[in-house]
Amino acid sequence: MPAYLTDLETPCVLVDLDRLAYNLDRMAAYAALHGLALRPHVKTHKAPRVAAEQLRLGATGLTCATPRELEVMSDVTADLLLAHPPVGAKLARVLALPPQVRLTVALDSAAAVEQLAAAARRAFRQVGVYVEVDVGMRRVGVQSPEEAVALAELVASRPSLRYAGIAFYPGHVRERMGEQDAKLSRLETDLRAILDALNAAGLTPPVVSGGSTPAAWRMHEVPCVTEVRPGTYVYNDRTTERTGACDWDDCALTVLATVISTSVAGQAVIDAGSKALGREPMEAAAGPNAAEGFGALLDRPELRVARMSEEHGILDLRHSDWRPSVGDQVRIVPNHACIVVHLHDLVHGVRGELVETSWPVAARGR
Amino acid sequence: MPAYLTDLETPCVLVDLDRLAYNLDRMAAYAALHGLALRPHVKTHKAPRVAAEQLRLGATGLTCATPRELEVMSDVTADLLLAHPPVGAKLARVLALPPQVRLTVALDSAAAVEQLAAAARRAFRQVGVYVEVDVGMRRVGVQSPEEAVALAELVASRPSLRYAGIAFYPGHVRERMGEQDAKLSRLETDLRAILDALNAAGLTPPVVSGGSTPAAWRMHEVPCVTEVRPGTYVYNDRTTERTGACDWDDCALTVLATVISTSVAGQAVIDAGSKALGREPMEAAAGPNAAEGFGALLDRPELRVARMSEEHGILDLRHSDWRPSVGDQVRIVPNHACIVVHLHDLVHGVRGELVETSWPVAARGR
Repeated sequence: MPAYLTDLETPCVLVDLDRLAYNLDRMAAYAALHGLALRPHVKTHKAPRVAAEQLRLGATGLTCATPRELEVMSDVTADLLLAHPPVGAKLARVLALPPQVRLTVALDSAAAVEQLAAAARRAFRQVGVYVEVDVGMRRVGVQSPEEAVALAELVASRPSLRYAGIAFYPGHVRERMGEQDAKLSRLETDLRAILDALNAAGLTPPVVSGGSTPAAWRMHEVPCVTEVRPGTYVYNDRTTERTGACDWDDCALTVLATVISTSVAGQAVIDAGSKALGREPMEAAAGPNAAEGFGALLDRPELRVARMSEEHGILDLRHSDWRPSVGDQVRIVPNHACIVVHLHDLVHGVRGELVETSWPVAARGR
Repeated sequence: MPAYLTDLETPCVLVDLDRLAYNLDRMAAYAALHGLALRPHVKTHKAPRVAAEQLRLGATGLTCATPRELEVMSDVTADLLLAHPPVGAKLARVLALPPQVRLTVALDSAAAVEQLAAAARRAFRQVGVYVEVDVGMRRVGVQSPEEAVALAELVASRPSLRYAGIAFYPGHVRERMGEQDAKLSRLETDLRAILDALNAAGLTPPVVSGGSTPAAWRMHEVPCVTEVRPGTYVYNDRTTERTGACDWDDCALTVLATVISTSVAGQAVIDAGSKALGREPMEAAAGPNAAEGFGALLDRPELRVARMSEEHGILDLRHSDWRPSVGDQVRIVPNHACIVVHLHDLVHGVRGELVETSWPVAARGR
């Protein structure tokens, strides 16, 4: 029995199946064209069904951020990267993954190496390691070629670990956010210095792995990169569109909401607030820009969710003559799709007004 | 077998059981002292265990925002308020609550009244209605005494509905956020005008229901109010403390996180990012203040989570000589506890370093 959008209880998450298929194809074709290994980050969809499609289209493995993501994704591939150092109580859980899983971990400290080496030894496993290097994001990663060599040497000296390469996260490199060309050129210089030092030490990295959807489309311009780890490209969002990494019509994910009040003049209140949309601001060159709101209508991108409470979103209609009624449905393109998925347990796959399928956000939670 | 904080996989949510008990007692005592009915909003804890304790301490019923919250809470009380108009596909679900539930709904439009009246009639139920009035929040609620009378008359004319009173949400009335006294006085004037109009029309409201933790402590100064609906008071958070509605030592909820990187000078990276803490800013009189970060260390409130990615939080240590090591645990008081709870499936109840109990966030999700 087919269901229609009007049958759905709101707020809920919709994914346009045609746009999803196009987005998956486009990145797979880009990676194949340039000979880049594609290891998508599952944080965006957290769904085995989407991951399986990424693998079918040529992805060599998957990237995860949490033990839960690893566990769920071990059902669809044996080649998993944990792009987040597991320390403390997480370690035992990560090492308890099914034995066929070839696990690689990205890390940036001797402490994380020692903890991982000891836990892997106790679990009778060998774990691959990417040495995480900072190329300008200032979040994680060793800070110099010398530190990269020292950490790679430490990894190579531990029998329970396998030195698998280096990883970096170019989250600061975004189209239209200023200085993209200069940042790309700086990125290559920085990577080159690290690679020269590693080569000189006999520690040539088998893999040079970069990530991030906005930067992925230009990674072929950085010749030493061998692998990309984009996540958001499957769904895209207002931020991706703003960076120039996709068009508005490539935004596959929307939040379906219902108008619940029009009492206050100049606005309409919907049942999607911060607990359904997340309170992610649009970023401008100068930082977060709250004035841009927390999402925009799919069919009227000039209309925004201007304010939110936990279960209320306020559509600002002051500069529009469109006036919805209580009970009308609207579709919101969020600022950040990954956060929206993390807030929901279920996603509906739609074509037009028809709900064709649904799937659980199986790797949500901890 | 007792568990200790160091046994827990991070990020996870901790609730200090002694502080929770104190917070529950304090609000119950306040309401009892002033003869106010207490109908706590469950959005903060979403947990039957905490709700049952609120009822044991004298709450007359519970307030919910979603069908899921209603369903889960119908196990602990039969007296439920849905403070969010159910329109569209939600209606059938809400009307399918167990027959013993005495449901009241707050709404502000004739469309919502008509939909609810028809659905209630079909379900052979009678549903109570609070007419929602706007007293300055500019979110939902009818805009004048005349509109309140018209909507109350419509409700009273429908056999499947029961006119149960009026509701307002004084979210704009916060201690230390400026003009609290003036706003309270204005609130009473506005309510008085609405009550006079309703009385004159023979529609004296049986209940005058207000909400919000920051304002709850002063609702006894608005004599016409008969019921309060605070939510956040059970856990409190950085925002509650800032408004003056609690002390720092009343913050019962923290996020336990682990330091995973100290590579970049002047900062430490923890494994709690926006997917564990939420991206809720601290509010200042002039609006959101991103410079205050997204949480503060329980034991060092001057140290803040300055930046976040989805699974990374950056502790800014530039103005401190404290230097944690990879693997160290920290406890973060979030800016907004309700959002943190909504991001997690489980809460651990702790005393000191001991994990005494755990409970599910049973009413999370849709």
